[in-house]
Amino acid sequence: MSYEMSKLAGRLVSSEIRELLKMTRKPGVISFGGGLPDPALFPVDDIIQITEQVLREKGYLALQYGPTIGEPEFIEALVQHQADFGEVVAPEQVCVTSSSQQGIDLLTLLFLDENSPVVLEKPSYLGSIQAFRRAGADMRGVPMDDDGLRTDLLEEVLDQIEKEGKRARFIYVIPDFQNPAGVSMSMERRGHLLRIAEARNIPIVEDSPYRELTFAGEPLPSLWTLAKGRGIIGMKTFSKMLFPGMRMGWLQGEPELITKIAMVKQSVDLCTPSFTQLILAEFIRRGRMRKGIEASRECYRPKLEAMLEALKTHMPEGVTWSTPGGGMFLWVRLPEQVDAKAIFPQAIENKVAYVIGKAFHCDGSGHNSLRLNYSFPSVEQIREGIRRLATVIKQALT
Amino acid sequence: MSYEMSKLAGRLVSSEIRELLKMTRKPGVISFGGGLPDPALFPVDDIIQITEQVLREKGYLALQYGPTIGEPEFIEALVQHQADFGEVVAPEQVCVTSSSQQGIDLLTLLFLDENSPVVLEKPSYLGSIQAFRRAGADMRGVPMDDDGLRTDLLEEVLDQIEKEGKRARFIYVIPDFQNPAGVSMSMERRGHLLRIAEARNIPIVEDSPYRELTFAGEPLPSLWTLAKGRGIIGMKTFSKMLFPGMRMGWLQGEPELITKIAMVKQSVDLCTPSFTQLILAEFIRRGRMRKGIEASRECYRPKLEAMLEALKTHMPEGVTWSTPGGGMFLWVRLPEQVDAKAIFPQAIENKVAYVIGKAFHCDGSGHNSLRLNYSFPSVEQIREGIRRLATVIKQALT
Repeated sequence: MSYEMSKLAGRLVSSEIRELLKMTRKPGVISFGGGLPDPALFPVDDIIQITEQVLREKGYLALQYGPTIGEPEFIEALVQHQADFGEVVAPEQVCVTSSSQQGIDLLTLLFLDENSPVVLEKPSYLGSIQAFRRAGADMRGVPMDDDGLRTDLLEEVLDQIEKEGKRARFIYVIPDFQNPAGVSMSMERRGHLLRIAEARNIPIVEDSPYRELTFAGEPLPSLWTLAKGRGIIGMKTFSKMLFPGMRMGWLQGEPELITKIAMVKQSVDLCTPSFTQLILAEFIRRGRMRKGIEASRECYRPKLEAMLEALKTHMPEGVTWSTPGGGMFLWVRLPEQVDAKAIFPQAIENKVAYVIGKAFHCDGSGHNSLRLNYSFPSVEQIREGIRRLATVIKQALT
Repeated sequence: MSYEMSKLAGRLVSSEIRELLKMTRKPGVISFGGGLPDPALFPVDDIIQITEQVLREKGYLALQYGPTIGEPEFIEALVQHQADFGEVVAPEQVCVTSSSQQGIDLLTLLFLDENSPVVLEKPSYLGSIQAFRRAGADMRGVPMDDDGLRTDLLEEVLDQIEKEGKRARFIYVIPDFQNPAGVSMSMERRGHLLRIAEARNIPIVEDSPYRELTFAGEPLPSLWTLAKGRGIIGMKTFSKMLFPGMRMGWLQGEPELITKIAMVKQSVDLCTPSFTQLILAEFIRRGRMRKGIEASRECYRPKLEAMLEALKTHMPEGVTWSTPGGGMFLWVRLPEQVDAKAIFPQAIENKVAYVIGKAFHCDGSGHNSLRLNYSFPSVEQIREGIRRLATVIKQALT
């Protein structure tokens, strides 16, 4: 049958990333491609126990429809979680989302029309770029360096948008252990970003999935904390802290905005499952999330160290990489003449995979960059995989 | 902060239904308002047992990210479920959705632009009307009678759309135990609808959440079955069969369409939780869904009978109602001069609640109708609630 579809449907492009990712499933390939937590961390016994308790005590709630905005006791638990990690959020500032990807979806629906200007880091999170592209938004990328978003260049980008008689709908940033760049925004830049956004009255979307996964000391104060929530829309998820299988996240913002978000969410999925909300609430109350986050840190720190060590040992001159203080990803820059996509088939032939950097650039730049994940592979796989990758890059350079 | 939002945001209207529903929470109010399954049916012990098994055997899968299109073993289980209920679906014709509301959301994104014509029954499901309205679609309602959609009038509506130089993006129908009308589409009408849609090359969205909840014999063959899937997009959910707490549904359609749907779903929530998919898969494999559906039928049939009996006993002349053969809802038509919204405060004063019929009409008509749910209240509450409601209606008539 021939369907007459929406404009949005016409903007869906078969992702070359997905095609490349399929190749990574070949036997023997060491993949640095995905962003998967290590399943060795999954708290199977706790979840079994907690599920039983939740169902026995309130099965009538857990298996029923719930409020669109979220189960009150889950909201209470996540507010406590945030407080434990230094962030003050009120229950009325929260709308639960079925994953933080749903958070991006809701914000896309609520804020973006075709050609709406939206500002984001270059590189930025692939899933957000996809959602913005779906809406036909006018994405304006701002380069990053080791201190995160180049706020000096942000001003230029915003000036340009204003010159065109438009206004950015929001500025989308991932300040902590950025995906894919593996860097954090410095305190100075955070302050500068907030001053710019406030002066121009542009909301900031602060996407912060990796914040808790710090390997040394505490992360810098969030934009939400620095601005006391004013003008900030926080996007959070429990997926990266320990295990993603429940797809649970939330948005935090001004209560009037949260009301609007809940109205859109109602048309999107009515409500996030009460079942998993109540299980996670109990998991947090028992202190297991905090313990789990500590375990994740302990698990990922040596993996990152092994990757940095292997990169240092094997990579040829001219290849550089970020040194993340947390999170799951490390960013590699190849010499200008090497195209990460062009050498991908050789990488697969050498049984190693990554994600090409271009995919994270809203303007199609970044040909000589790539993203490596270190949370999923083992230390041994990391050592061997980086050795293989270095071989491929060396070949490309000769 | 003042936000500059999308056109979509401007179309969000604070639902008067939600305001009315708030009133139903007053103590002592017997509510026929929601569409909740009876929690007495919830299979708590089974879910505890199955969760333990799933987590022990494949916790690494259950708590990890899963494929956008759905977990293969859940798709296998639901294909088997469909076969058990007489519907032939191939795995590649399925995309799992996080509730059937997400199904409507995905189809709305994929098919509807501002002013796109879409045809639906009058009355129709509130959640779909909300999603279509959000998109700014041009909704064209077709009246129903006791045999369901008036297919003769459908032709007129489609002619009108064509005369305007447009084409309906799809025809949205709920053929079995329709929500809210409580009627099913006759075999003759099903055939007529399919001939019309095929001749004009317009896809049909068949929303079928109540199909399994039949109280006498088997339901009529679905449009999907009659058309062998050609030109039909099936929308299904497990929420109404037994318990909704896992928010699990799926879309079925031609494989190329399913691929497009999965592309949109990726931007919407990446994937539906593997955790709940694997639990439900095992629940279905064990035959518990079928057993549960039988229990639901046994539970709801006497409730419907009690409601019909009470209506007959108490309602004044001029009030009519549907006699559903299954599902959860019954539709009441009041004498022309009685406005269901106007008498709502008196109903609450008399401690009984319903949903006003207007909410289900895409064109704001239906002032003298209302929807009653009989799945959630007890038989005693149904008897007493209908008595109270009849009192209110009689008062309005004097």
